[in-house]
Amino acid sequence: MQLMPDDMQKFFSPRSIAFVGVSRSAGRFGGLSFLTRYQESGYAGGLYPINPKADHILGIKAWPDLGALPETPDLAMVAVAADKVPEVVIACARRGIHHVHLLTSGFDELGSEQGNLLEARLVAVCQEHAVRLIGPNCMGPYRPASRLTAWGAIPGLPGPLGIISQSGGMTQRLTEYAASLGLGVEKAVSVGNGSVLDALDFLEAFGQDPAVRVIGMYLESVSDGRRLMELAGRIGRTKPIVVIKGGQSEVGARTAASHTGAMAGRRAVWDAVMRQAKMIAVETMDEWLDALMIFAHIPTPCTQSVFIIGGGGGSSVIYGDTCAREGLQVPPLAPGTMQSLRQITPEAGSIAGNPLDHWLVFSDAPHLARLVDLAEQDPGISLILVDRLIPRKAFHGQDDSDNTADTIARLQQRQGTKPIIFVVDSEGGDADLAARGAAVRALYGTAGYAVFPGIVRAARAIKRHCRYFEKRSRKIQ
Amino acid sequence: MQLMPDDMQKFFSPRSIAFVGVSRSAGRFGGLSFLTRYQESGYAGGLYPINPKADHILGIKAWPDLGALPETPDLAMVAVAADKVPEVVIACARRGIHHVHLLTSGFDELGSEQGNLLEARLVAVCQEHAVRLIGPNCMGPYRPASRLTAWGAIPGLPGPLGIISQSGGMTQRLTEYAASLGLGVEKAVSVGNGSVLDALDFLEAFGQDPAVRVIGMYLESVSDGRRLMELAGRIGRTKPIVVIKGGQSEVGARTAASHTGAMAGRRAVWDAVMRQAKMIAVETMDEWLDALMIFAHIPTPCTQSVFIIGGGGGSSVIYGDTCAREGLQVPPLAPGTMQSLRQITPEAGSIAGNPLDHWLVFSDAPHLARLVDLAEQDPGISLILVDRLIPRKAFHGQDDSDNTADTIARLQQRQGTKPIIFVVDSEGGDADLAARGAAVRALYGTAGYAVFPGIVRAARAIKRHCRYFEKRSRKIQ
Repeated sequence: MQLMPDDMQKFFSPRSIAFVGVSRSAGRFGGLSFLTRYQESGYAGGLYPINPKADHILGIKAWPDLGALPETPDLAMVAVAADKVPEVVIACARRGIHHVHLLTSGFDELGSEQGNLLEARLVAVCQEHAVRLIGPNCMGPYRPASRLTAWGAIPGLPGPLGIISQSGGMTQRLTEYAASLGLGVEKAVSVGNGSVLDALDFLEAFGQDPAVRVIGMYLESVSDGRRLMELAGRIGRTKPIVVIKGGQSEVGARTAASHTGAMAGRRAVWDAVMRQAKMIAVETMDEWLDALMIFAHIPTPCTQSVFIIGGGGGSSVIYGDTCAREGLQVPPLAPGTMQSLRQITPEAGSIAGNPLDHWLVFSDAPHLARLVDLAEQDPGISLILVDRLIPRKAFHGQDDSDNTADTIARLQQRQGTKPIIFVVDSEGGDADLAARGAAVRALYGTAGYAVFPGIVRAARAIKRHCRYFEKRSRKIQ
Repeated sequence: MQLMPDDMQKFFSPRSIAFVGVSRSAGRFGGLSFLTRYQESGYAGGLYPINPKADHILGIKAWPDLGALPETPDLAMVAVAADKVPEVVIACARRGIHHVHLLTSGFDELGSEQGNLLEARLVAVCQEHAVRLIGPNCMGPYRPASRLTAWGAIPGLPGPLGIISQSGGMTQRLTEYAASLGLGVEKAVSVGNGSVLDALDFLEAFGQDPAVRVIGMYLESVSDGRRLMELAGRIGRTKPIVVIKGGQSEVGARTAASHTGAMAGRRAVWDAVMRQAKMIAVETMDEWLDALMIFAHIPTPCTQSVFIIGGGGGSSVIYGDTCAREGLQVPPLAPGTMQSLRQITPEAGSIAGNPLDHWLVFSDAPHLARLVDLAEQDPGISLILVDRLIPRKAFHGQDDSDNTADTIARLQQRQGTKPIIFVVDSEGGDADLAARGAAVRALYGTAGYAVFPGIVRAARAIKRHCRYFEKRSRKIQ
């Protein structure tokens, strides 16, 4: 089903929302928790809880039924019991509400005849009454700029991402993770079983949405492989589409069937679709986030010749090995660069070269800026990768002051064009170190740098970035 | 060269240490920083700084030369300029000190004729004067139980690991990371250029050391491939040996040559050595730590049939896919287990099965303990993997109380024998979440559970564990 600008407006920027299925007592989840979050997030539109037994819910005036409402809400959020859903959808349509987010689960994903029948009836009702429905069994729409952030990071951060997902949980984790690193979302949607509007409908809409620059999808099933290929082939030419496919293994497929009723395709079939459609396939939550981040922060092509700046001989060796294993180039530097580098790098205990091993990188922001300037002038280098060790006692003695803000300020005063990427790792069990690592990542991310918690993840994301633009340029030629 | 118990005693449990090359002024690194750390760490033996121009250094009485010392120290730590090293080593031998840790760099690793000549002279001097030397260009010995923790995590944690490394920095990071998760080190040694005593000498010694249960090595070069195969074949039968080989790529090999003067072998040659020697090969710092952790915490074989416990449909799908991709089994549960599971798992919004998707797992310690009990009785399951989401606002509302301590207490009251492994991820840019994640990992790690910051890392470590014991049992048969 094609979504028109008016549909997108009503789903993602509704002027008012009715909540059907809001109990008075606080539960762990459901309509009430969504209502609570809309209040908290600062959503400025009208909130209309429907409950015939309450005057007020959470201090908001409640209405006995949809017919009693003083205006027609743009959107209804439905969380009633599954067997009540068809009649509520009909009531929405009668009140003029044709955009519904259905949270309720208990349909196809149960794998029971009853569930299947109920979902078929729901689809028929929506068709008959021209209701555009997101769901069932899903978290629905999310848009930080509209304060429509009932799930995911709160209050949410607007940004370039468009996320389409068959898992609310995965998308919550992704949006939260991205926001913590300064990477925001324009629109996200969790489509659940996707029985009326499915992931491809939103892919088509996001393709036409100028505010969505990078698209991320989590799919468990695809209703129409041909349409996916057609859409992805067209949209992927201007917007990277990063896809994680759940249910590629037998156990994953079994679980996906219980999760969203998906008949997950075989891996080989999916791989063929991905190859033809030229989407960017990833396999884990981390890779999904990493790829979205690098495309969001580095929108232009760059070749894969990396200058690795860090400290520690062993780290430099492993960083070089890792980049090579992931398919990147770590070329020797130009003679002029080496000459300058040798002048500012001690002979013993450091290594002037690529990778560069010099502890001063961690503690001396002007020095790091000088190194970046050298890389900028080296014609063999297209990208700068900085291993940014968190100050810690074992390496730095008592001096654990952090120079990240100074580093960012100096780098941003420069005129360079080559992307700079940071690696900041801190995933052990030291709470203080972990907090400092996260804070440093947040600073780099918020300043617009792609930042990763480990070299493997950074190298893999860089490789994906290069490959996407290579393919795209081949396609255009 | 074979290291005798007396050699190991003098290197790792010295009664006293002379420091040659300790300036009075504080520098960033060198003999003085080591002396400082030995003071801080609570090392109880004698500390003898040698400096003809000072009465006291850091409040410790200084001595004009080695000859003036009131006793013969077990160990000398030498940090003088490279060209002065041979004469200092001779002076050590004349004073009766035959165990030396040489920090100084500026030898083979420079790649210059002068460096090579100096290293050859050093080797000759050590042979002539029967000096057992660790170095040059290295951080030397480390043993928390002796408070010999001048580098690495301070004050350091004793434990089952034996670490042998050609990179001080890698080993520092490893020991710090391990200690933060409650995993300690019996002995570690950074051998640098390894010109007199090399990594294989310590491998042989650790093989005979009953306190070392799991061995980790970071190698850039191997002096004697045949000896490595012989030692690893023998020692690997009773102790897992986890090896990370630096310099497998061209760029890594180039850097290794500048780092430790290593002529790193080609990858194919190394792979052949690894296959024959049946060591456990890893490729990154993270995999190194993860493998050491799983072998330290799970010393007995278990088959690779995993029960995945967590919450979130999408997460469950991806966890299942990931385990399958890494070669693990995630089998359907036995009918009896399923029957019990269905009684305690809601039909809508959760999935009773393997993986199990039920949010209660995160917040309800008794519930988690019940699930583990069910898995304990299921004959098809050998290992339990728990995805332990950190409480966060997007999922849990305001309730962010942590139940880790309660969970551990309940699990430890049980009589089960199947290993339980935790995944706790929190590597974004939210400092509070990162700190809580690290604290939870530390709690599980300290309680003796293998804990990983992501599912891919957990699955890969489990697979390595299974494969090692499979190979070992085939070998014994």
